[in-house]
Amino acid sequence: MPREILLNAFHMNTVDHQAFGLWRHPRNRTRDYNKLASWTELARILERGLFDGLFLADVLGIYDVYGGSPDAALKHAVQVPVNDPMLLIPAMAAVTEHLCFGVTGTLSFEPPYTFARRMSTLDHLSEGRIAWNIVTGYLGSAALGMGLDALAAHDRRYDMAEDYMAAVYKLWEGSWEDGAVRRDAEARVFTDPAKVHAVRHDGEFYKLDAIHLCEPSPQRTPVLYQAGSSGRGRGFAAAHAECVFVAGTTPRVLQPTVADIRRRAVEQGRRADDIAIFAVATLIIGRDEAEARAKLADCLAYGDHDAALTQLSGSTGIDFAAMALDDVLQHVRTEAQQSAVDGLTIADPDRQWTVRELAEHHVLGGRGPLLVGTPESVADGLETWMDETGIDGFNLAHVLSPESFADVADLLVPELQRRGRYKTAYRAGSYRRKLFGRDRLAPPHPATGVRWG
Amino acid sequence: MPREILLNAFHMNTVDHQAFGLWRHPRNRTRDYNKLASWTELARILERGLFDGLFLADVLGIYDVYGGSPDAALKHAVQVPVNDPMLLIPAMAAVTEHLCFGVTGTLSFEPPYTFARRMSTLDHLSEGRIAWNIVTGYLGSAALGMGLDALAAHDRRYDMAEDYMAAVYKLWEGSWEDGAVRRDAEARVFTDPAKVHAVRHDGEFYKLDAIHLCEPSPQRTPVLYQAGSSGRGRGFAAAHAECVFVAGTTPRVLQPTVADIRRRAVEQGRRADDIAIFAVATLIIGRDEAEARAKLADCLAYGDHDAALTQLSGSTGIDFAAMALDDVLQHVRTEAQQSAVDGLTIADPDRQWTVRELAEHHVLGGRGPLLVGTPESVADGLETWMDETGIDGFNLAHVLSPESFADVADLLVPELQRRGRYKTAYRAGSYRRKLFGRDRLAPPHPATGVRWG
Repeated sequence: MPREILLNAFHMNTVDHQAFGLWRHPRNRTRDYNKLASWTELARILERGLFDGLFLADVLGIYDVYGGSPDAALKHAVQVPVNDPMLLIPAMAAVTEHLCFGVTGTLSFEPPYTFARRMSTLDHLSEGRIAWNIVTGYLGSAALGMGLDALAAHDRRYDMAEDYMAAVYKLWEGSWEDGAVRRDAEARVFTDPAKVHAVRHDGEFYKLDAIHLCEPSPQRTPVLYQAGSSGRGRGFAAAHAECVFVAGTTPRVLQPTVADIRRRAVEQGRRADDIAIFAVATLIIGRDEAEARAKLADCLAYGDHDAALTQLSGSTGIDFAAMALDDVLQHVRTEAQQSAVDGLTIADPDRQWTVRELAEHHVLGGRGPLLVGTPESVADGLETWMDETGIDGFNLAHVLSPESFADVADLLVPELQRRGRYKTAYRAGSYRRKLFGRDRLAPPHPATGVRWG
Repeated sequence: MPREILLNAFHMNTVDHQAFGLWRHPRNRTRDYNKLASWTELARILERGLFDGLFLADVLGIYDVYGGSPDAALKHAVQVPVNDPMLLIPAMAAVTEHLCFGVTGTLSFEPPYTFARRMSTLDHLSEGRIAWNIVTGYLGSAALGMGLDALAAHDRRYDMAEDYMAAVYKLWEGSWEDGAVRRDAEARVFTDPAKVHAVRHDGEFYKLDAIHLCEPSPQRTPVLYQAGSSGRGRGFAAAHAECVFVAGTTPRVLQPTVADIRRRAVEQGRRADDIAIFAVATLIIGRDEAEARAKLADCLAYGDHDAALTQLSGSTGIDFAAMALDDVLQHVRTEAQQSAVDGLTIADPDRQWTVRELAEHHVLGGRGPLLVGTPESVADGLETWMDETGIDGFNLAHVLSPESFADVADLLVPELQRRGRYKTAYRAGSYRRKLFGRDRLAPPHPATGVRWG
């Protein structure tokens, strides 16, 4: 029996997320990113399409590598201005019943005590529909914003992340025992104090001696996402993540990454399918091939290569403005840029990318594939990706929002359902129950080691 | 012409805010504090009653002075569990058009860079209906939660607050010039980079070198609330606050505080009425006197004196569990407790309070008056407070939520309107425009000194 495909919508509380220059398209509503109605409308469309989740990216800081200044990012609205993503969720949760929400939270910049409260609050308000995408931050401009001299080095950030996770697990799982909250009006006991504990953490980076401020939420620890592509990142994901977000331009590029993440999870004593892996993809769907091609041409006319390279420069540390468009990437990157390039589009052993080709590829959808066609041909493409890579589903970026998602809901989903590749109704319960059949993390996940009793 | 009375609802993302033990009352829905629907319902009731704002208190930490442990706070749900207040606002903003939201934010515990983004995001999403209640935190348990050895001393916290304000003003007012955001699709310019500036701050406590991540929101700097009752607190309020939250058991106790705040504002070059002053009050309203008295008796039957004293112990640092109920407060407090006691209920020169009397007073509504009666007699009472103290309005606490607020909307507001003491429709525009007739802060407010051009 073919496996069901999981679908997330990939979005960001900003103007142009991964379709660079498209803010200028008259049908694109991302210019209304700062209006609540645009998000509640999006949430309703996603729930109509039985999307599993809305995955909200976030980047603290501004892309200032391209041309050595933030000017291009500002001019083209390349992920700036960027508002806080968490604050979108309560309004969207209020107008949906099943849609789940993954939100990116940069752990380097908020203490575990208050961050854990925010996530518990979201998990309560959404009745268990919350995931946290664990990121350590990667822009130097954010470090300066936070009053630091520079960002901690890559491996150091993962040391901090391990310490941070140990602290938040204690708050979420180890402070309030099951049964602590009695809400017993007759006995005049809301909470049994004997079952609530101050948790202590004395790590290299984070310290804590406190009772978690929130009563246990449906999932306690939110569903954990991670997207690290480095070896250290994959090791972190194998230990902690329940969902992993990956990117590759072809199935052949991506397959070894997927296999490596599952192998590492098994090494940690987890099952290979304890992790759901999502690949980024961008879809342009037409009722027939001609309509799809016309949509593509229309969107490409608004695409902006400078904007695409601005984002790529920021995320890799390579100033593409200083290179010629015909330069071949693999020839010019320095040793120091090697790790930034790993896992990006250009780490494709089958292809030598020029800067121009990179811009052309990146402009609509960023690091993943762009599939253009009828519902049937796009469904074929997704099935191929599923079967050749071993992923569980897709983070679907948009070229136009909410139109790209409405097309998925109305055109693609019925086709996937006909093929037995997509659910016909939501499963009941929390995000974790929908994905894995249980509300709480299970051993040997490290979060479970700090529980009482 | 009599002045219009401003009304805020006073609430908290917790079980029992200021009506201690009342979570057990069958008609009280505060037990559903963790459900979105209870907040969207409340917001609709408040807008029906033309409430100016919903003021959300917050306390990071747990009251652990009473009996030397957090047990009483947990057992009686005295402001614990307590969820994050900010995350309630987007859902309530989505179902209202005019209701404004004041949210408490503890500046000691979040860097200016990310906090400024959260507030700008809320100001965008609510279309300018946001206020920030500036607090420095006062519970030692929160400091331990944040990995600190202890809370900074009182005056030191105000030094930090001054430094913090300077930093967030730069982000909100000094980073993006007016006109920086062009959204000009034809010219391919979203933002004019020449009009966006990295702001630098190098204070004793906070450092910053960054472009604010958000484009200007309707108010830029949110409406600023403050509630400090110490001399230092009042000085801070006189310089920064647009709204001040005060408390006193009688008009005679409160009047000098109100006069002092206005005098200090004038000393700072501001006008006395540049600050709107709100006193806490709790109302129990019946269609006739007998109904009001019956409601009072019913609520008092659920009131819990231990719970009231638990909160008072936490907020003053005095362990009332170690005292006899007949002890007179003024006789037992130590020098060190003097400043904690200043501004609280018990700082009433006309009255010597025993611990029992304090509990009896505090159990329904905390530090302000409890007015019980018909719409006419309660309106009389509010008018007396307005006229004898010089305040601008009230932060109305609840004994039952949302019932207490529905009573105000349906019984009291029509009476106040008949007297010309309450608006009959909302004014258009942002929170600041509704209160002061302008969207942006005006000189000589210190936030205005960092603007461009």
